[in-house]
Amino acid sequence: MLNFSFENQTRIHFGEGQIAKIAGEVPKDAKVLITYGGGSIKGNGVYDQVVDALKEHTWFEFSGIEPNPKYDTLMKAIAIIKEHNIDYLLAVGGGSVIDGTKFIAAAALFEGDDPWDIVAKQQAVKRALPIGAVLTLPATGSETNIGAVVTRDGNKLPFMSPVVRPQFAVLDPAVTLSLSDRQISNGVVDAFIHTMEQYLTYSVNGKVQDRFAEGLLQTLVEEGPKALQPEHKNDLEVRANIMWSATMALNGLIGAGVPQDWSTHMIGHELTGTHGIDHGRTLSIVLPAVMKVCKEAKHDKLLQFAQRVWHVSEGSDEQKIDKGIELTEDFFKRMAMPVRLSDVDLGEKDIDLLIEKLEAHGMVALGENQTTTLAVSREILNTAL
Amino acid sequence: MLNFSFENQTRIHFGEGQIAKIAGEVPKDAKVLITYGGGSIKGNGVYDQVVDALKEHTWFEFSGIEPNPKYDTLMKAIAIIKEHNIDYLLAVGGGSVIDGTKFIAAAALFEGDDPWDIVAKQQAVKRALPIGAVLTLPATGSETNIGAVVTRDGNKLPFMSPVVRPQFAVLDPAVTLSLSDRQISNGVVDAFIHTMEQYLTYSVNGKVQDRFAEGLLQTLVEEGPKALQPEHKNDLEVRANIMWSATMALNGLIGAGVPQDWSTHMIGHELTGTHGIDHGRTLSIVLPAVMKVCKEAKHDKLLQFAQRVWHVSEGSDEQKIDKGIELTEDFFKRMAMPVRLSDVDLGEKDIDLLIEKLEAHGMVALGENQTTTLAVSREILNTAL
Repeated sequence: MLNFSFENQTRIHFGEGQIAKIAGEVPKDAKVLITYGGGSIKGNGVYDQVVDALKEHTWFEFSGIEPNPKYDTLMKAIAIIKEHNIDYLLAVGGGSVIDGTKFIAAAALFEGDDPWDIVAKQQAVKRALPIGAVLTLPATGSETNIGAVVTRDGNKLPFMSPVVRPQFAVLDPAVTLSLSDRQISNGVVDAFIHTMEQYLTYSVNGKVQDRFAEGLLQTLVEEGPKALQPEHKNDLEVRANIMWSATMALNGLIGAGVPQDWSTHMIGHELTGTHGIDHGRTLSIVLPAVMKVCKEAKHDKLLQFAQRVWHVSEGSDEQKIDKGIELTEDFFKRMAMPVRLSDVDLGEKDIDLLIEKLEAHGMVALGENQTTTLAVSREILNTAL
Repeated sequence: MLNFSFENQTRIHFGEGQIAKIAGEVPKDAKVLITYGGGSIKGNGVYDQVVDALKEHTWFEFSGIEPNPKYDTLMKAIAIIKEHNIDYLLAVGGGSVIDGTKFIAAAALFEGDDPWDIVAKQQAVKRALPIGAVLTLPATGSETNIGAVVTRDGNKLPFMSPVVRPQFAVLDPAVTLSLSDRQISNGVVDAFIHTMEQYLTYSVNGKVQDRFAEGLLQTLVEEGPKALQPEHKNDLEVRANIMWSATMALNGLIGAGVPQDWSTHMIGHELTGTHGIDHGRTLSIVLPAVMKVCKEAKHDKLLQFAQRVWHVSEGSDEQKIDKGIELTEDFFKRMAMPVRLSDVDLGEKDIDLLIEKLEAHGMVALGENQTTTLAVSREILNTAL
């Protein structure tokens, strides 16, 4: 196991009806800005529950945070914050709304010239408005972690700071019953691949981390497809297991003390930035190719993955590994996700631009050993054709 | 899954050499009281590392906190705290030192008449001195949780308060290399049974919690006996896996959203309070009997435990369950732990007093369904003869 420091200070309220808890979590004298997306929370009752919980508070609202939240959209919130002296942000939505709210929180108190430098120049974020989160789409883990991703002019870039970690997060699986199949699929696969990025590297004998990761992967494999089946459409237990898995997949815990490889995400970000493909769907395309191209470096973990997550027991080690990759692709297909670039109408002609973007964003040595150069990323994209 | 709220705000520094981190964790202007036990930390270099890290700080020390820390011992620290205006406590030791320090932290600022009321009358602890912890014996999880157990006149009683949760904890597996075999055994079995108390109940389909618990159990089963083997005596990876398992076993995570049954601990506390038996050794005696007596209520989880933790695949469900219990006892024996009252020279004649003590302490309806009455506890103790 590698040395590590770990903390996660977000207070979690999990379960049906827990949105009411925000009444006690947001300071009574706060001036709150509720941030949300396209308005689906008004159709599924979440908005009403939030407003009811804040009936003793002073609050304003800011809507329209889109998937892959855009810098220009987010900066519009700053004017509202200044006008009303907002001092608390309540993000109500999925990862994009929470990520966008983290950027707003940091930009509102940013002391540099241009808040875009937070992501473009990775300028340190030392202060931010406090944030609470009501999660509506389990996927990114943003509700309890310190990271966020923001997009501007086709550039999708991350930043991290402990000061943007939500102070509390409400996870009510009942609010996810109104999600579309596509949202469920994207979320389950996103959480699956967050887990893989912290697991599928080289072994450092971190037995707890490995088993926790494998437990999340097995749970997502079991529960994800169920959430798409008519007979489980309203199964709150399925939604609860998915929701808790997604939060645990990226709260820092399973990645503490082990190497990580975020190359699938970094390559996926370019697919989203350039072609607007849903985040989760870029990952289901890229991961199988990463598993194939980096088979040697990841050999031991690929074998363990095949044996423990997929219970593959027959054949040579090589055959077991290949079977594990095949079963992973099958799982993505059962989640109605694309697994090849051709599934989203992209081809060989599109690879050059993606490689250029990776280079422009400094993504020239990805992977747990920094050996995924641009040439290797090209091989990965070619393998994903 | 049941509704739950979860938080754990302790910052963890894990790995060899991390004791140096306390220099940055303890406020520069704090007046620190280092609390410890019998002085083993002076023999194994831990004391020197702590003192070196605090060379810019003002600090005092209080030693002599014994296993199952005694009220009378702990109250002696209060005088030192008042004399020197101590405003930060640094516990350096195992669960007893950290538990004792939690009581000191609460007693120092207690506003009632008698600090013993904190445990005897469960008076709410609203304020406490801040605590940091340097863990030397992985076992109790006290280093990141809100609980503590204190003993007075043969009464071993718990209290809980979020204000006594350590602000930070240093977990350096290298400092555990100097532990005795008996300390290692006690710690591994304590962590194993903490996990079982949050796992072996009735199923609420908490898939993540179940798999995390099973991951901890499997890791302790693999690594615990290794730590006693000469060829692994200095194996830091083994110690790291044990240490991280013990912390995760009782930091609140695996118990969030699932029923719990602390009857093994409550019955065990009476064995310690009355006969001075090591905490871990009371648990290895009581748990197998709880598994046998409560077989019906715990049927599904006992079966899952046998299959997933022990990989039992043959026989009827009943046979699998029995095999799982048998393998658990074998594991305790491999850890050189007692599994019967007769192993610690107790017999039928001693049961009446234990039952009286349980009654006096209000432990009359234990278990996940509150069905472990005094009569059932008696049956458990008879089964453990």
